[in-house]
Amino acid sequence: MTDTDITRRLAAWTVALRPDDIPEAVRREGVRTFVNWLGCALGGARHETVDRAIAALAPFSGPARAQVLGRSERLDELHAALMNGISSHVLDYDDTHLKTIIHPAGPVASAILAVAEARPVTGEAFLAALVAGVEVECRIGNAVYPEHYDRGWHITGTTGVFGAAAAVGRLLDLDERQMTWAYGIAATQSSGFREMFGTMCKSFHPGRAAQNGAAAAFLAKANFDSSLQAIEAPRGWANVLSTKQDYGEIVDDLGTRWEAKLNSYKPYACGIVIHPAIDGCSQLRERLGERVTRIRSVELGTHYLVLELTGKRTPQTGLESKFSVYHAAAVALLHGDGTPTAFTDERARDPEIIALRDRVQAKVEPGIEEDAVRIAVTLEDGERIELHVEHAIGSLERPLSDEAITEKFRRQAEPVVGADTAARAIEAGWALAGTGDAGAIARLCAA
Amino acid sequence: MTDTDITRRLAAWTVALRPDDIPEAVRREGVRTFVNWLGCALGGARHETVDRAIAALAPFSGPARAQVLGRSERLDELHAALMNGISSHVLDYDDTHLKTIIHPAGPVASAILAVAEARPVTGEAFLAALVAGVEVECRIGNAVYPEHYDRGWHITGTTGVFGAAAAVGRLLDLDERQMTWAYGIAATQSSGFREMFGTMCKSFHPGRAAQNGAAAAFLAKANFDSSLQAIEAPRGWANVLSTKQDYGEIVDDLGTRWEAKLNSYKPYACGIVIHPAIDGCSQLRERLGERVTRIRSVELGTHYLVLELTGKRTPQTGLESKFSVYHAAAVALLHGDGTPTAFTDERARDPEIIALRDRVQAKVEPGIEEDAVRIAVTLEDGERIELHVEHAIGSLERPLSDEAITEKFRRQAEPVVGADTAARAIEAGWALAGTGDAGAIARLCAA
Repeated sequence: MTDTDITRRLAAWTVALRPDDIPEAVRREGVRTFVNWLGCALGGARHETVDRAIAALAPFSGPARAQVLGRSERLDELHAALMNGISSHVLDYDDTHLKTIIHPAGPVASAILAVAEARPVTGEAFLAALVAGVEVECRIGNAVYPEHYDRGWHITGTTGVFGAAAAVGRLLDLDERQMTWAYGIAATQSSGFREMFGTMCKSFHPGRAAQNGAAAAFLAKANFDSSLQAIEAPRGWANVLSTKQDYGEIVDDLGTRWEAKLNSYKPYACGIVIHPAIDGCSQLRERLGERVTRIRSVELGTHYLVLELTGKRTPQTGLESKFSVYHAAAVALLHGDGTPTAFTDERARDPEIIALRDRVQAKVEPGIEEDAVRIAVTLEDGERIELHVEHAIGSLERPLSDEAITEKFRRQAEPVVGADTAARAIEAGWALAGTGDAGAIARLCAA
Repeated sequence: MTDTDITRRLAAWTVALRPDDIPEAVRREGVRTFVNWLGCALGGARHETVDRAIAALAPFSGPARAQVLGRSERLDELHAALMNGISSHVLDYDDTHLKTIIHPAGPVASAILAVAEARPVTGEAFLAALVAGVEVECRIGNAVYPEHYDRGWHITGTTGVFGAAAAVGRLLDLDERQMTWAYGIAATQSSGFREMFGTMCKSFHPGRAAQNGAAAAFLAKANFDSSLQAIEAPRGWANVLSTKQDYGEIVDDLGTRWEAKLNSYKPYACGIVIHPAIDGCSQLRERLGERVTRIRSVELGTHYLVLELTGKRTPQTGLESKFSVYHAAAVALLHGDGTPTAFTDERARDPEIIALRDRVQAKVEPGIEEDAVRIAVTLEDGERIELHVEHAIGSLERPLSDEAITEKFRRQAEPVVGADTAARAIEAGWALAGTGDAGAIARLCAA
C-alpha cells in the first residue's frame, strides 16, 4: 500500500461489498442503527428547526418523490434527505460512534431512504448500503480524530458526506472509478463547524451531508469527474482538514474490522459526553429521595471534552441547554429526565432548575474516560454523597437493548404520528432486512 | 472594535449600504464585473462539465423560474445559480481579485441573477448587491490570504459562499440579525480544495458557493439561526480554515476602501498566474516570426505560484492543460493564443505543441511579482532572445478596456447564442445600472 491510493482502495471496497460479506452481528447492528435513526427522525420532525428549513427551501424542491418523515410534506430526494437529516439529529438523541463522536446514521440513512423511494431497493441492498456508508464515514473519522475535531470541525458533517456518497453510490451501482469521483465530490463539499453547536446549524450539518453526499453520487453517476486522490493528496481532505492522517484506519482490514458494529444509541437527548453526568445524577436522585430539594452543591469530575463542549453556564434556549452539563445535571437530579423533555425552552428557563444549575460545579478529572464521571453531592446539612459512574448507560459496555430502542422509538414517534403508525413503523424498521421495498418504510412514516 | 464583533459588523454594513453610497468608479467596475461574468457564463455554457451537472441534478430541480445562461434549460433559482456558476468559471476565463486570486463574480452574480428572475429587482439594486457581495468575499479573503490558500483551500469557493449570501441577502431585505445568521450558515458550508484543479470540481466550487450562499440567505430570511460570531469565534471560520486572521481587512474602512474596485478580467482562459508567460510568449512570437519553428529551448523565470499551481508537465485533457505553464507557453509561441481555443482536448494532444512544451523549462525567480515573468528563448542556431514582462495584460496596471471586455464577450457568446442575441446581451449588460428588471437579462440569454 502507498499513501497515494487510499481513496481508490476505499472506493473499490465500497462497490465490491456484497450483502453476504457482512457478518451477521454487523448486519444486526445495522438494523439497530436504522431503527434508532428512524425513531429519532420522527421525534424531531416537528421541531421549529425543521419548520424553518422547510419554509425556506421547499419552494426550491423538485418533484415530490420522497417523504419528510413525521410530516405531510413530500420533496425531491435531495431535499427530503436534508430535512430527515436535520430532524434525526435536532434533538441530539441519535447515535454515536464513540471513538470519533460521529453520529453515523443521520447523513447515511437520510440519504438512502429518500433515494430508495424514487428507485425501489430491497431491504437487503438498503442494509448493505447503510452498513457501507457508516463504515466509510467512521473509518475516515478514525483517520483524523481527535485532531480534526479539536480544530473545530463538526465531524458528523465533515465525514458524513462521504458516508452518504458511499451508500447512495451503491444504490446507483457506481463503478469503482465513479465511486472514487463520488468521494472526491464529497470531499470538496465537506464542511460544518462545532461553533454552530447550540444553534439550528448543528443539525443542518448531517442534513447537508446527506444531501451533498447523495448529490456527489448522482454527479459521479453522470461522469462528473474529480480528483482520484481526494482524501490522501498533499492538499487533499485529510491534510487540509487535519494535522493527523492515519490512512491505515481507512483501508486496513476492510471487511474484517467493522466500525459499523461499534455504533451506540443515546439514552439521553444531548451530546454523548454529558451522558455519564445524567446517568449518575439520575441514580443519585433515586438515592436522595426527598432530600433532592436540600442540595447545597454538586461537584462533577469529568472528561475534558465535557467542559469544552457542554460548558454553557447560562443556556437561554432548549437547543443551548443541550450544551450545558450544569443544566443537564440539575434536570436529572430534579426530574430524573434526560430525554427531549429535559431540554425544552421551558426547562431552560425554569427557576427551580436554574437555581440548582447554578450550584453545580464541574472540573476536569485527569485520566477519566469519556463514558465515566465522579459526582459528589453536598446537602445543606453538610452530608456528602458520592457516586462513580464507570460506564454510562448507552456506552458499548452498557448498550441499549433492542427493547430500549423500541421504547425510545415509541416515545418519540407516538406524539408525532400516533400510536398506530408508530407501531407499524417500529415493526417495519426491525423487519428491514427482509423487506422487498425499503422506501415503503418512508411512506409509512407520513404524518 | 473587538475581535468578537466581526461578523455582526460586516452584516450591519451589508444591510445598510445604499446604492448612492457606492462611488461612481466602484459602480463602473461593478458593471464591468457583470458584463465580463455574463460573457464567460455564455462562453462556458456548452462545456461538458455543465452538461453532466445538468444531467445529474436537473431531475431534482424545483419549478423552472431561472435561466441557465446560453442553454435552453430553466431551473429553480438555486440550481440555476449552480449551473451558471459552473459555466462562468469552467474555462478559467473569468475575473480575478489579484490580492487573493479570488474569482469574485461567479459565486455572486450567478446567485443574484437567478434570484432576480423570480422576484424582480431593479438594475440599481442588483448592482449594489453585486458590489456588496464582491466586497464581502474579497475582504474575507484578504483576512486569511495567503495562508488559507496555501493550506489547500480554493478560496473562490470558501469565500464565495459569503459573497453570495451577502448579495442574495440584500435582495431578500434581510435585517442585520438575519444577515449575521446568513453569514453563519454560509460559513458552515464553506468548502472546496485546490486539489480539484484540473477536474470538473474546480468550476463546481463557485457554482456551489452561489447555490449555498443563496440558500443561506433564504434560510436566514426564514429565521433559521446560526452562530453570531461565525467568522471570528475561537473555532469559527477564520481560525478553522486559516492560520492567519487579519480582521481589520474585513471591517476597517468599510465604504471608503473598496476591494470591489480592484477586480480584473482575464485576457487568457487559464489561471491568472500563467498570464505573464502567455503574454510574453505571444509577444515573442511576433518578434520571432518564422523562427518560431526553430526553438531549441524556452526558459521561464516565474513567481513561485506558477509552478505550484500550473506545473503539470504532461496534461492529458483541455481542463488539465490550463494547469500547465509549459502547454500555455508552447501554444502562445506557436499560435499566439491564450483564449479558450488554446486549452481544448485537441490542443492538449497536439504533437507539435507537445514537442515544444517538452522544451519549456520553468524555475522560480526570487522576488518576481505575480504579474511578471522573464523569458529566454534559445534557437537551434544558438541565438538567444530575452523578454521581461513587468505587468501582464489584464493586470491592474494594464487592465482590459471596456472595448476589450465587449470583444471577449462577443467571441465567447456568438458561437453559443448567435450574433444577434450576443449583441443584445452585451448591450443589456452595459446598461445594467439603468434597467428596471435585471432578471430580464437572464431570459435574454437563453439559447
